[in-house]
Amino acid sequence: MHFTSIANVLGKLLIVTGLSMVFPFLVSLYYQEGDSPCFAISALITTALGLPLWWFFRRSNDLDTKDGIFIAVFGWIMVSAVSGIPYVIHQTNLSFTDAFFEMMSGYTTSGATILTDIEALPHGLLFWRSQTHLMGGMGFLTLVIIFLPHGMGGLRIFRAESSPGQVITKERFTPRNKDAMIRLWAIYLALNILLIILLSVGGMSIYDAMCHAFGTVSTSGYSPKNASIGHYNNAYFDWVLIIFMFLGGMTFILFYQILKGDWKSLKINTEFRWYVGFLLFFCGIVTWILWRNGTYDSIGESLRYATFQVMSLMTTTGFTTADYEQWPRAAQMFLLVVCFIGACAGSTTSGIKVVHYVIIWKYIVASVKRIFLQPLTVVSIRLNGRQIDFSMIDLAVSYFIVNVFLILGGSCFMVMSDNMDLFSAMSSVISTLMNIGPGFGSIGPSKNYAHISDVGKWFLSWNMMIGRLELFSALVIFYPSFWRK
Amino acid sequence: MHFTSIANVLGKLLIVTGLSMVFPFLVSLYYQEGDSPCFAISALITTALGLPLWWFFRRSNDLDTKDGIFIAVFGWIMVSAVSGIPYVIHQTNLSFTDAFFEMMSGYTTSGATILTDIEALPHGLLFWRSQTHLMGGMGFLTLVIIFLPHGMGGLRIFRAESSPGQVITKERFTPRNKDAMIRLWAIYLALNILLIILLSVGGMSIYDAMCHAFGTVSTSGYSPKNASIGHYNNAYFDWVLIIFMFLGGMTFILFYQILKGDWKSLKINTEFRWYVGFLLFFCGIVTWILWRNGTYDSIGESLRYATFQVMSLMTTTGFTTADYEQWPRAAQMFLLVVCFIGACAGSTTSGIKVVHYVIIWKYIVASVKRIFLQPLTVVSIRLNGRQIDFSMIDLAVSYFIVNVFLILGGSCFMVMSDNMDLFSAMSSVISTLMNIGPGFGSIGPSKNYAHISDVGKWFLSWNMMIGRLELFSALVIFYPSFWRK
Repeated sequence: MHFTSIANVLGKLLIVTGLSMVFPFLVSLYYQEGDSPCFAISALITTALGLPLWWFFRRSNDLDTKDGIFIAVFGWIMVSAVSGIPYVIHQTNLSFTDAFFEMMSGYTTSGATILTDIEALPHGLLFWRSQTHLMGGMGFLTLVIIFLPHGMGGLRIFRAESSPGQVITKERFTPRNKDAMIRLWAIYLALNILLIILLSVGGMSIYDAMCHAFGTVSTSGYSPKNASIGHYNNAYFDWVLIIFMFLGGMTFILFYQILKGDWKSLKINTEFRWYVGFLLFFCGIVTWILWRNGTYDSIGESLRYATFQVMSLMTTTGFTTADYEQWPRAAQMFLLVVCFIGACAGSTTSGIKVVHYVIIWKYIVASVKRIFLQPLTVVSIRLNGRQIDFSMIDLAVSYFIVNVFLILGGSCFMVMSDNMDLFSAMSSVISTLMNIGPGFGSIGPSKNYAHISDVGKWFLSWNMMIGRLELFSALVIFYPSFWRK
Repeated sequence: MHFTSIANVLGKLLIVTGLSMVFPFLVSLYYQEGDSPCFAISALITTALGLPLWWFFRRSNDLDTKDGIFIAVFGWIMVSAVSGIPYVIHQTNLSFTDAFFEMMSGYTTSGATILTDIEALPHGLLFWRSQTHLMGGMGFLTLVIIFLPHGMGGLRIFRAESSPGQVITKERFTPRNKDAMIRLWAIYLALNILLIILLSVGGMSIYDAMCHAFGTVSTSGYSPKNASIGHYNNAYFDWVLIIFMFLGGMTFILFYQILKGDWKSLKINTEFRWYVGFLLFFCGIVTWILWRNGTYDSIGESLRYATFQVMSLMTTTGFTTADYEQWPRAAQMFLLVVCFIGACAGSTTSGIKVVHYVIIWKYIVASVKRIFLQPLTVVSIRLNGRQIDFSMIDLAVSYFIVNVFLILGGSCFMVMSDNMDLFSAMSSVISTLMNIGPGFGSIGPSKNYAHISDVGKWFLSWNMMIGRLELFSALVIFYPSFWRK
């Protein structure tokens, strides 16, 4: 491990975080609600912590894979901690645990909140909350890679963090240089700007439009309104957000290829076809259930609410336009299944992701066929028309199973620490591990995470982080061989 | 497919089933409760169906793997159907759906019941119910194999059905001949007789002792008492049954090896060590939770109730001595996790089974290490000191994942058909798929399956069957290539 290089990168991370507090500071100046000093002080502290780290170790430029993993894990913890300072020193007096949970939830694009009355907070603090989505959506560390000198192992950090551009096929889009990373960020910001314009055109204030755009393209889910998107009860907003959640759930490299006129890459993309297929199936069946049970007056309304909720949960956004716990139970059960699926790899989403299901499905069908019917068949799995490597299969399978283990083990932990009912406990672990936000039971769409104990909040924060890092980058630090020379 | 050979074997199955009704017939004669004619008529019908099938095709002796799978699936369905006849023609007037469910639950050693007042039934019918456990515990078809001529593919049927003797290591105990099968049956029956004696010595009537022994060694769970084992509230019975549930969950070949004086095979058996480890962990933690919460007066009582329930759910028996839904939630959550584990392969149990966890754990640890830390490592997994084949890993991994898929998909089905709450729906699917019996919520330990709709009962019956056949033997019939020449 190259601890001086690590210190250098962590220093830069702190500086970027500190400087980014300029934006909520400006917002707070505009609204004059007394939260400006919080940001000034926090920015100073954060930058003051980062500057010496960066300065003293500025000549250390060696990073290997282990360093990348170390930076990913401790970088996310550190950034969430310093980002919570404005909330702790503001008069709303959030505890450090709550502030850390809220910021980890922001950066990991979960959108799980401990705020019971969101609208009571000043605009500056709420903007900062939404801005963490913007920064976390592309993978926080990609920002830093742009500021790294060439040859400093940016790719290694990039691989340790699960972030857009990372697709698990052989045709991996290797961000060999800053240019590629900058291009992805440009697409991401362009989507945000486009959405801000579309929401403003529909009559949303610029401030609300920005907050919601940040929460949508990054598929995160913080809203400055207590009732989330349901606050507006506006079909135009709903459908615009449905489209942008869908885009946020797509592999970002596809945008890049489409911009180059390469529409064929969309057509041959196996994961994209499955993604659309899953969405059509679940939107269809939930719409049908809502319509048949007369939950909404017309089939159009059923389609609108069902599609919004399925899209929101499948892309792990977590916005709500309805209290789906009031829906027929069958609709709820399908929404629960949707939480397990997730969107595409290399998007701004977390969760299990469609590509893993593609691989797992093909793997199981082939394995069972070989074992029971045709012993001489060789298992080979094709993705986007190309055969994939066996280690990809191992990764997909392990990823799915470890998620299941973590859900079962985590539920035991939550029931022990918080005496939650079993279903709410499982739901809280699923929602945080998949970075969704709302769930079922005591953390349902009309509720929040405020009632969870401190121990529980730390545990769920940890879940959000390892979920965002796609588990293994975070979990390998528990291997003894990780720490060996 | 050799349909004439299949007809021959199915005919024998019917004859064996018909003849086995002699035992409940004798019981009903002894107790004189008016159910004797039901058994006489049912036995005649069943034998009359079987005799011509066997006679006309008695010269057909070719069976391949596909035939074995076909026999496994349709044999279980057919036998459950004819075994339900006594219930349908008796004055209790169970519907055919209910009778089929009850019998499928019996043969698959699930122990899920649709009877609301068990003790209202005559002794004969209850004995027949328990006897299906005895017959199903070793895998129903192994019985038939004993009656097959040599070289008639007994092994292939045996492999298609998940049954004792089947262990997924290279040192597979191949039941090459009837002798091996007869030896396993002898051990099984000896355990049953020993338990009947031990229970009788403790003061249980011979009738009750037989019923409970049949339900214990086969890890099934039907009791002729409404309150299950809790009826007696007797520590001696509890501890005796704990020991025999433990034995029922062990790999049966180990008994055979121990009888030969080969104690070393127990020591090197990886699965056995994990089995004991899991049990110690879960019994320990549930005891601790019960004791700390003051659920029972003393630590001794806590140990007794906790150990019984953990053992009962982990071995998929499903006996209860307490309404564990009244226990602290943390204890319930651990019991839910226990339902996912199961006991050893090659035992009378169903469920996911410990050996699959051993393989999955070693596989994941090795895969992640290779991908993230040491790219040049070769993944190799050892079981009982020997390296296992890659197809075993594929099978274990696929088995676990397909179980998870079936639980999620099945829950959707149950919520749609029965409008159950989400948690009860999941629990009903888990309990039937793993052949446990009781679960949580509306199918909790103090409740039963009577309230489930007909569609739901057929679906859960199907779940019990595919769970008992370890999924793939039942699911490969959906492969188009299964039906191709």
